[in-house]
Amino acid sequence: MFSTNFTRLLVPLLCISALAQAQQKKILGFNDSSSVHQQNLENLFDKQLDRVHIGETIKALSANPHHIGSANGAAVAQEILKRFQSYGWDAKIETYQVLFPTPKERVLELTGPTTYKALLKEPALKEDATSGQSGQLPTYNAWSADGDVEGALVYVNFGLPEDYEYLARTGVDVKGKIVIAKYGRSWRGSKPKVAQEHGAIGCIIYSDPKEDGYYAGDVYPTGAFKNEFGVQRGSVMDIVIHPGDPLTPNIGATAQAQRLERSQAINLLKIPVLPISYHDAAPLLKALDGPVAPDEWKGALPFTYHIGGGKAKVHLKLSFNWDIKPCHNVIATLKGSEAPDQWVIRGNHHDAWVNGAADPISGLAALLEEAKAIGALYKQGFKPRRTLVYCAWDGEEPGLLGSTEWAEDHAAELREKAVVYINSDNNGRGFFNASGSHALETLVNEVAKEIIDPQTKVNLLARKQASDILKASTVKQKKDRAARLNMNIGAMGSGSDYSSFLQHLGIPSLDLGFGGEDSGGEYHSIYDSYDDYSRFKDPGFYYGVSLAQAAGHTVLRVANSEVVPFDFRRLYETVNGYTTELIDLASTMRESTILENQLINDRIYQLATDTAKHLLPPKQKLAVPYLDFSALQNALTVFDTVTATLSLQKDVNQSVYQAEQQLLNEKGLPGRSWYQHTLYAPGFYTGYGVKTIPGVREAIEQRRWAEAQEQIAIVSASINKLSNYLQKLKAH
Amino acid sequence: MFSTNFTRLLVPLLCISALAQAQQKKILGFNDSSSVHQQNLENLFDKQLDRVHIGETIKALSANPHHIGSANGAAVAQEILKRFQSYGWDAKIETYQVLFPTPKERVLELTGPTTYKALLKEPALKEDATSGQSGQLPTYNAWSADGDVEGALVYVNFGLPEDYEYLARTGVDVKGKIVIAKYGRSWRGSKPKVAQEHGAIGCIIYSDPKEDGYYAGDVYPTGAFKNEFGVQRGSVMDIVIHPGDPLTPNIGATAQAQRLERSQAINLLKIPVLPISYHDAAPLLKALDGPVAPDEWKGALPFTYHIGGGKAKVHLKLSFNWDIKPCHNVIATLKGSEAPDQWVIRGNHHDAWVNGAADPISGLAALLEEAKAIGALYKQGFKPRRTLVYCAWDGEEPGLLGSTEWAEDHAAELREKAVVYINSDNNGRGFFNASGSHALETLVNEVAKEIIDPQTKVNLLARKQASDILKASTVKQKKDRAARLNMNIGAMGSGSDYSSFLQHLGIPSLDLGFGGEDSGGEYHSIYDSYDDYSRFKDPGFYYGVSLAQAAGHTVLRVANSEVVPFDFRRLYETVNGYTTELIDLASTMRESTILENQLINDRIYQLATDTAKHLLPPKQKLAVPYLDFSALQNALTVFDTVTATLSLQKDVNQSVYQAEQQLLNEKGLPGRSWYQHTLYAPGFYTGYGVKTIPGVREAIEQRRWAEAQEQIAIVSASINKLSNYLQKLKAH
Repeated sequence: MFSTNFTRLLVPLLCISALAQAQQKKILGFNDSSSVHQQNLENLFDKQLDRVHIGETIKALSANPHHIGSANGAAVAQEILKRFQSYGWDAKIETYQVLFPTPKERVLELTGPTTYKALLKEPALKEDATSGQSGQLPTYNAWSADGDVEGALVYVNFGLPEDYEYLARTGVDVKGKIVIAKYGRSWRGSKPKVAQEHGAIGCIIYSDPKEDGYYAGDVYPTGAFKNEFGVQRGSVMDIVIHPGDPLTPNIGATAQAQRLERSQAINLLKIPVLPISYHDAAPLLKALDGPVAPDEWKGALPFTYHIGGGKAKVHLKLSFNWDIKPCHNVIATLKGSEAPDQWVIRGNHHDAWVNGAADPISGLAALLEEAKAIGALYKQGFKPRRTLVYCAWDGEEPGLLGSTEWAEDHAAELREKAVVYINSDNNGRGFFNASGSHALETLVNEVAKEIIDPQTKVNLLARKQASDILKASTVKQKKDRAARLNMNIGAMGSGSDYSSFLQHLGIPSLDLGFGGEDSGGEYHSIYDSYDDYSRFKDPGFYYGVSLAQAAGHTVLRVANSEVVPFDFRRLYETVNGYTTELIDLASTMRESTILENQLINDRIYQLATDTAKHLLPPKQKLAVPYLDFSALQNALTVFDTVTATLSLQKDVNQSVYQAEQQLLNEKGLPGRSWYQHTLYAPGFYTGYGVKTIPGVREAIEQRRWAEAQEQIAIVSASINKLSNYLQKLKAH
Repeated sequence: MFSTNFTRLLVPLLCISALAQAQQKKILGFNDSSSVHQQNLENLFDKQLDRVHIGETIKALSANPHHIGSANGAAVAQEILKRFQSYGWDAKIETYQVLFPTPKERVLELTGPTTYKALLKEPALKEDATSGQSGQLPTYNAWSADGDVEGALVYVNFGLPEDYEYLARTGVDVKGKIVIAKYGRSWRGSKPKVAQEHGAIGCIIYSDPKEDGYYAGDVYPTGAFKNEFGVQRGSVMDIVIHPGDPLTPNIGATAQAQRLERSQAINLLKIPVLPISYHDAAPLLKALDGPVAPDEWKGALPFTYHIGGGKAKVHLKLSFNWDIKPCHNVIATLKGSEAPDQWVIRGNHHDAWVNGAADPISGLAALLEEAKAIGALYKQGFKPRRTLVYCAWDGEEPGLLGSTEWAEDHAAELREKAVVYINSDNNGRGFFNASGSHALETLVNEVAKEIIDPQTKVNLLARKQASDILKASTVKQKKDRAARLNMNIGAMGSGSDYSSFLQHLGIPSLDLGFGGEDSGGEYHSIYDSYDDYSRFKDPGFYYGVSLAQAAGHTVLRVANSEVVPFDFRRLYETVNGYTTELIDLASTMRESTILENQLINDRIYQLATDTAKHLLPPKQKLAVPYLDFSALQNALTVFDTVTATLSLQKDVNQSVYQAEQQLLNEKGLPGRSWYQHTLYAPGFYTGYGVKTIPGVREAIEQRRWAEAQEQIAIVSASINKLSNYLQKLKAH
C-alpha cells in the first residue's frame, strides 16, 4: 500500500461524507481501512487524468507511419521512453532482433476471361491529413510466402473449414487454384492456412462491404466505414503454432540468439497471400462463373456471387524483403516499497501498420496517462507496495514480436515475479470489455463498478448489463442478466500481447478496453489516423480516460493489495461451465452424427435439394463414441470443495499469484507445444478466437476421439494440481 | 363412381399384378372394391396427361398480354371455352361488369436535393419473344388513388406496422411525407394501407435486389431473377376487407346490380401508390439522409441505406381510367351420374397482368389438361358420380374479381351444392404444396402418396418430407418430421380464387401447386413469358403433369367417393394446435410486456444504445390481462369426443360437405363482415398471409383484449355448432 507519509497527505483532502461513503466498501485484497485508503488514492489518480492530454498523445504518436523497423517506429519508442522518464519512472529500451518481411513486388491481375489489374493502393484523402504521407507500408499480409502463381479463381466465402466442406458438395476443388476469401468470422491468418491445407496455390483476402464497408454505414471520409479503396493489412503468421519471431521460438531474439533457417520455421505459410479492397475484388468476383454461392456466402457487392473454379483466372506475384529488424520494447518501472520482487505488469504495443491512431495508440495513450498520473502521485509521496512495470511493445502487428521475445527472454524471472499482466490495445467509445484469467473476475467487477461511464453517467457494470440484456434473445435470458449486475469476463484467445504471459507462462492476465460504439473500417489501413479517431472512434477522448481509470485502478489494486486480489471460486465456476459445454458438445455431436448419417443413407439430401443445382450430399462421418469425462468431473468436485472455503492470507502472496502456473502442461497442446495453458488458447482454426479447455474441445470438434480422451486426463491433472496447490495454501 | 359400362371396359386393360397391388390400398370415401376401381381410373387419367401438350397450352394462352378488360383477355376466355367444349364439356362464359382502373398518367421524380425522373418502363429483351409486344399494361398498382403529391421521402423498410414502431424511435415521422417501402414480408396492399394509417401522402413500392434481384441469383435473361428494370405490378385493393368488385360487395356484379359510388367503397386506398424497379429506386434511396437504417432494413443496393425524412423530396403524380369492364368467367360442367346436385368445383384464373405464362397460365394449363383427360375418359364411358364444375376465372389479378362475383352471385346454390372447391394458380418445378380446409388433409395425403415426383421418382410426400427434414432447425424437429410421411397442409389466407368459397361461403377448399425450385423475378412483370417459363420455371413441363395429377386425382376422388372424403379428426387436431398457440401467444406477450416495461422503466434502452444514434426507447405498453380461454377449451373437448368416434355413412353426404359452413359467423370478423369463417382469414396487416382463428389471434396481436374475449366466445360457439352438427350425423 502507499506509504504513511502519503496517507497523512491524503486524508485532509477528502470531505467527511466522501470518506464515510468510501468506508462502506471493502475491496478484495484489502482490509476495511486500507480499502478506504485505496479508494482515496484512486480518486486522486482520476484527478490526474486529462482527456485533452490523451488526445494530444494520440495525435503526437500517430503523426507518422511507424511500423516496426522504421525510423519513425524507433522515434516513437524514444518519445515514449522520454515520457516515462519525465513522469519519474525508471525506463529503458530493450531491443530484440526479429525477422520482419516487407513487400518488394506485388502484382494481382485478372487474366481471363476479362482482364483487370488490381490497384493495391489506398488513395490519400484531403479530409485525412496523414493519409498522403510517405513511409506507409504498402497493402500486404506480412508472412505471405514469396510466389508467382496463376490459376483459376475460387470464391471460398470466409475460408473456414466448413466452407470447404460445402465447396466439396458443389464439386469445385481448390487444388492448384487461387482462392479469394473475405475478411471476417475467422482470423485472417486462418484463411490462407486452410486454403493451403486444401491444396490452393495462392490466397486473396478482401474486405466485403457487407462486413466492412457501405453496408454497415457511411464510408470514410463521410462516415467511419471502409470506402472502396480501403485495405486491411495484417499478419498471417500462424500464431496458433506460436507467436513471436519465427526464427527463435521459445527463446528471446537477442542479437546472439541461435536462429532457425527461415525454411525451418514452423509457423510460416508456403503460399502467397494478399489483402485487397472491395474495389479491387469486385472485377475478380464478377468474373467468376460456376455455381451461385449459397445465401450465407453472399456479400454486399451489387452482383450475383458465384463460386467460380471455371474460366476466371488470376495471376498473383509477390516477393518480400526478409530482413532482420530491431524491435524496441520500452520498459518502465516504479519500484515497489514492500514487495519489489512482485511485478504488476501493464502493457500496450506502440508499433502500427501505418499511423495507428486507434491501433495501438489509443490504448497506449491511456497507458501513458496512467504512468503520468502515477508518476504525479509518486512525486506527492505515493509508493506502490509492489513494483509496477509499464511496457510499450514493438512489433505486435506482425505477430506479437516484442512482447513474446521479452517474455521468452525473461521467462524465469517472470515466473517468479509476475503477479499479473494487464494488457490493452486499441480503444474506443462504448462499453467496457474485459477478458482474461477468471481468478481475476471479481477484481475486474469491483473496479468496473466504481467507474462512471462518461456518456450515461452510470457505472461500467450497469451499462454493460443494459447492453447484455438487450442482446439476450429470450425473456428468460434477459431476466437472468437483469438479475445480476456483475459481468462475466471473456476468455482470451490471441491477437494482442497478453498471449505469451498467459498462455506460455501461466501469468494471470487481463485485457481491458472499451468499444462497441466506435465501429468503422480504418483497421490496419492508412485511414487509422488522428482525423478518423477524433471524429469517429472517441470524440473528446472520454473513453481514453475511462480506459486509464479501468486499467489504472486494476494496476493500483493489485499493486497495493495486502493479499493479491484473486478469487478462485470464479475460476471454478467458469471451468465448471466449460466442462458442461464440452459434455453437451460431445453429446450433441453424437446425436446429430447419427441423424445426419441416417439422412444421408436415406437419400434425404438428394430428395430435398434442387436437382438443377447438382449439389452432392454431405459425406457420412464416423460415429461419435462416448467419452469418459469422469476424471474431469472428479477434478472439478475437488476444485469445488477447495475453492468453496478458500481464504487467502497475506503471507502467501507469491504462492497465490503463481497458482495459475499450475494449470500449465509443459508438453503444450497437441501439435503446438508453445501453448501450455490447459484452459485457454487461440483456436487452431479460429486464430484470435479463443478455445477454452482447448486440448479437449478441439479434439472433439475435429473428431479425434483418442486425443480427446488423452486431453481430458491432462486437463484433469492440471486442475488437480491447482487444487492441491491451493489446498496447501489453506493448510498454511 | 364411374358407370358399370366403364368398369367393364376398364378391367381388361389392367394386368393381374397391377390389380393386386392396387387392391391393397383402401381409399378414404371408398370401399375395398371401389378403391380399386378408382385407382384404375386414376391410372387411365394419368395416361391422358401430356407434358408437351401442357407446354403448348402455356405457349398459346400466354402468347399475348391478356389482362381483364382487354380484347386479348376476351379472346383467351373464348379459346378456353372452345377447348372445354372440344373436350366434351358443357361450357359457357358468365360475364360480370366490374370496376377496373388502368393508368392515365404516371410520374415519379426526385426533385431534391438532386433530380431523377423514374423510367417506369421495363425494356423489351431479344431473349424474350413477347417482351416487346403492344397491349402491355404499364407498371402500376391497381386501385392506387389518383393523386399529385410532393414531399420528403422516408424509407420504411417493408412497411410493416413494426417498421413504423422503429421509425418512431428514430424521431422520423411520415406524416405529410411520401414513403418508399420494399416488396416482401407483407402483401403489397398492406404497405400503402399502413403508410396511409400513419399519415403518409403517397407510397412507392420497389423490388430490392436482396429479395428480388441479383442477390438471389443471375438476373434475367442470363438467369431467372429480376433484372434492374423489372417491376412487380399488382393490386393494392384492401382485399382483407373484401375482395371482388369494390362497387358490389356481397352481391354479383351483374349488369343490373345496384352499385356503390366509388367514394363509398370500403376497400380502396386514399393515397397514390406506384411500384418501381430497383433501377428507379436506387437514385431515390441514395438521396436519403437522416439516420442509417438498422441492419434488418438493409437491402442489396451498393450504398448505405438511410431512413431519410430530410432533404430528399419526390413528386408522385398518378391518375387512372376508372372504367367498368367485362369480366369473363368460363364455366364448364360435366354432369354427375348419381348426385348431379353435388358439385366438385375446380378453378384457376386466366387473366394475367401481362402475358402471365406462369401466373396464371401454368396452373390453367394443368386444369385444362385435366379437363381434356376427363373428357377423354368420359367419351370412353366414364361418368363421375357427382357433377364436375371446372372454372377459368377472369379478373383475379386486380382482386379476385371473377371468382368473387361468381361466388356471390351463386351463393345460395353453392351453399347447397358445393362439395369442395379446388384451386390452383401459378405452378413450377419443385415440391408439392397444399393448403386449405383441414378436414381434407387426409384426402390430400392419400392423393399425394400415390403420385411420383418426376425428378426424384419418389412419391410427393417422401420428397416433401425430405425438404421439411432439412429445413427443420433442431435434431428433435428433424427426427419428428422423419418419423412421419404425412404432410400437414397449410391454412389459407388470400391471394387466389379460393377466398370467396372458403372464407365467405364456408365451402371446403384446397389450393394445390408445386414450387420451390422455380424461383425467379418474373412475377407480374412483362418477363412472365413462355420463354422465361420454359427455361426457368418448369423446363419440359413435367410439373404441369404433376399438378394435373394432384388436382385431377383429388377432383376424381371427391367426385366418385361413396362417402365424401372428409376427416374431421384432422380438423380437430389442427384447431387444437391453433388454440395452444393462442394461449401461448397471450402468455408470451404478457411476460414480455412486463419485462419490456420494466426495461423501459429502468432506462435500459438509453444505457444500451449508442448515444450518438439518438434512438428513443420504445413506448411502454399496457399490461396483458389473463384471458379466459375455457369456452374454447371446452368446445375442443366436445369436438375431440365427437370426432374421435365419427364414422360417416353414404346417406349423409350433403350434410358432411356442408359441415364446414357451421364454422361461419354471419356477422363476420370485426370490421370486415365479408369474412365469415371463424378459423381462416387473410391477416388484416399481412394480406395474403393467413391468420388462423383470426378473430381471437388478431385481437390479441393488436392488444384489443375485450374483443379477444368476445371472439373466443364466437369461435367457441362455431366449434360447438359443428360438434352438434356432426353429433347428429353420428346419431343418424
